[in-house]
Amino acid sequence: MEFITGVNRKETLEISELISGGWEGKTVTVNGAVHTIRDMGDVAFVVLRKREGLLQCVYEAGVTGFDLKTLKENAAVEVKGEVNREERAPGGIEIRLREIKVLTEPAAAMPIPISKWKLTSNLETILDLRPVSLRNIRERAKFKIQEGIIRGFRDFLYGEGFTEIHTPKIVSRGAEGGANIFKLDYFGKKAELAQSPQFYKQTMVGVYDRVYEAAPVFRAEKHNTKRHLNEYTSLDFEMGYIDGFEDVMAMEAGMLQYVMKLLETEYAKELKILNLTLPKTDRIPAVRFDEAKQKVSEKYNRPIRNPYDLEPEEEQLISRYFKEECDADFVFVTHYPSKKRPFYAMDDPADNTYTLSFDLLFRGIEITTGGQRIHDYDMLREKIKARGMSEEGMEHYLMIFKHGMPPHGGLGIGLERLTMKLVGEDNVRETTLFPRDLSRLEP
Amino acid sequence: MEFITGVNRKETLEISELISGGWEGKTVTVNGAVHTIRDMGDVAFVVLRKREGLLQCVYEAGVTGFDLKTLKENAAVEVKGEVNREERAPGGIEIRLREIKVLTEPAAAMPIPISKWKLTSNLETILDLRPVSLRNIRERAKFKIQEGIIRGFRDFLYGEGFTEIHTPKIVSRGAEGGANIFKLDYFGKKAELAQSPQFYKQTMVGVYDRVYEAAPVFRAEKHNTKRHLNEYTSLDFEMGYIDGFEDVMAMEAGMLQYVMKLLETEYAKELKILNLTLPKTDRIPAVRFDEAKQKVSEKYNRPIRNPYDLEPEEEQLISRYFKEECDADFVFVTHYPSKKRPFYAMDDPADNTYTLSFDLLFRGIEITTGGQRIHDYDMLREKIKARGMSEEGMEHYLMIFKHGMPPHGGLGIGLERLTMKLVGEDNVRETTLFPRDLSRLEP
Repeated sequence: MEFITGVNRKETLEISELISGGWEGKTVTVNGAVHTIRDMGDVAFVVLRKREGLLQCVYEAGVTGFDLKTLKENAAVEVKGEVNREERAPGGIEIRLREIKVLTEPAAAMPIPISKWKLTSNLETILDLRPVSLRNIRERAKFKIQEGIIRGFRDFLYGEGFTEIHTPKIVSRGAEGGANIFKLDYFGKKAELAQSPQFYKQTMVGVYDRVYEAAPVFRAEKHNTKRHLNEYTSLDFEMGYIDGFEDVMAMEAGMLQYVMKLLETEYAKELKILNLTLPKTDRIPAVRFDEAKQKVSEKYNRPIRNPYDLEPEEEQLISRYFKEECDADFVFVTHYPSKKRPFYAMDDPADNTYTLSFDLLFRGIEITTGGQRIHDYDMLREKIKARGMSEEGMEHYLMIFKHGMPPHGGLGIGLERLTMKLVGEDNVRETTLFPRDLSRLEP
Repeated sequence: MEFITGVNRKETLEISELISGGWEGKTVTVNGAVHTIRDMGDVAFVVLRKREGLLQCVYEAGVTGFDLKTLKENAAVEVKGEVNREERAPGGIEIRLREIKVLTEPAAAMPIPISKWKLTSNLETILDLRPVSLRNIRERAKFKIQEGIIRGFRDFLYGEGFTEIHTPKIVSRGAEGGANIFKLDYFGKKAELAQSPQFYKQTMVGVYDRVYEAAPVFRAEKHNTKRHLNEYTSLDFEMGYIDGFEDVMAMEAGMLQYVMKLLETEYAKELKILNLTLPKTDRIPAVRFDEAKQKVSEKYNRPIRNPYDLEPEEEQLISRYFKEECDADFVFVTHYPSKKRPFYAMDDPADNTYTLSFDLLFRGIEITTGGQRIHDYDMLREKIKARGMSEEGMEHYLMIFKHGMPPHGGLGIGLERLTMKLVGEDNVRETTLFPRDLSRLEP
């Protein structure tokens, strides 16, 4: 019997340790995957791929105790060598190799050249080969940016007094329903996959006042577009004791500001790899739905076809308008028509054709839907009735209003869409590790 | 048009602000839900439930501008009053009420007395009424502890160079399969809900070396026990370049130490509400599977029925043994029999009846399964063949080994089980917000 007392510290070093640590001239041990081998005759550059980036190692015939011919790209290795300052190498250092120990040999060469700076294969091929194409430096950088977004989302909300919750993804069939649901059999009962944590997060406002959840949601929509996925990560928050839906927009603006700051400080390496400029979040314009339609119709000479709907092209034009007029990357569009919003949306008391709700557009695409919710039991039941819906299956949801709920509102953000526009992609599959769409269920 | 520039700061104060802020004698505005009203005649105590705890407010006839008879428990209110030092009140302060504004009136009284210190109804009733029973102070404290665990898990792993990933929960049917899967139709294709992110997290080790995911997993097991759920939150990590499965155990020990420290500092309030003593994590014993069976068999005079399996009662006895012998709350049981582990588990080269794997037991129950994985392509294919399994449907998984994977290992932790044992419950439903079991699909 032995005792485990905490993390095993190793003699192998990471890139940040090598750069910061005064290791110059000393012999160190490093592990990694052989990203590329560039053989120049007597000397060869063996570049290792490590979690923090690339590390240049120099193989010298006669000095390095290893036969270079037997070294394969994508082998996992542990090497020993002397740290050398070398301004032309990534990070300004390189390792003069003494020993190479192969930990694992690959059985075959890569099907696509993942060590190229940018993958040039078409998206379908890249997705088919996702388990290995993600080893490309630019590909993996995108998902570090995604990590930064969700991390900033959580850290900011903790700081604002939100509590993290975990709500079920298998739910009883009914209520919000509709055609776009994945159905399943649950031990003989009719169940479905949750399209959103909406009812649960509202429920939890009655418990903690402010809550958030970052988790998968499922939509069986038959859209095959560049912006739709059938499974995605939804960043949801819901907050009580609001004075209006403006408080929700303000919280989102604060969150975005925090995220951008975090990316700037802790993800600078990835921003550089992807050559990104972060969007401005200090002043986000907010414009009414009807006003926004009017503005783009006038400026871009485009007739309004349906006053109660926003077409994808109109979203793009609204974004373009505010980019041109205020140099804004984000724009809140407020007061969506009631008939386009779910029953729990709070109607505008000034004109109940509209709701106290909003979308956030980012570079031409909707990345957030939010708003104030009805909190009064009787008002909610009336709205359900007026819509010709039934209360059946909604008993647990209605229970929270029956026993008292504060005024509240919230929103949901599509993580992959936000990442897509942030890293400058135009297909949401590019920023989803293993996307699920109409035709793709693998890998 | 207006501009949104960041979080709207309000004049309403939270409890921590009231306590720390030198507000004594000043008039403040506070909101919250009316938790209880204790009417003493001329004076009444109106206790508000806020996200940080309870706040005592004093109603004085003639001073407070409001008719107390019209105030209902569970109303959402905003009140104005003077801050008073009062040692007997929670937090050492109270508010002398001047004005009460009702934001929302409940339509009916609570079906169970949620303002009692401890709910006394049976578990089924509490779960049926979960949307409101969670408003009980002790109930909600359990899920703050749960938040602390997952938060500590993430923060610790970030610090150790892990990257957060999001992998699909709808997966193609096949591979790991078995009887315990929820099946669904995916646009005419056979799909299932992921039982674990196993293949994906191993895949991502090839990309980032170290990864983690905290997300729901789904098990269609027909167990109706106190320790099984059909949907739960799995805390998974996977790490490359390990020297052995001991590195994985050591990382888990470090993580648990970090979590306990975080709970101690940031969740002290909840620990006090639940009257909890945190378990020791500085020295966690590790014992071989066969040795552990032998030890408890001898000490507790219990015959070994099956040398290759661990019965729930044996898990309890092993925990009891190490509590008695080393005052340990946790114990790692290592070298599980190969036939009880999945095909990807690395067999012990010294004796391939056993694997380089472990479970972590905590107060009598398994909360983690982990170990080293096979990283060699040929070895993996041989094991698949030896088990009589087919490679069909595993092409994307096998691809990562074909093109080189470092030695690696990882684990999965059941969040609800860990929370259960930490807060001293014996039914995992107690520490699941909205549990899913054989008979429960709602709320």
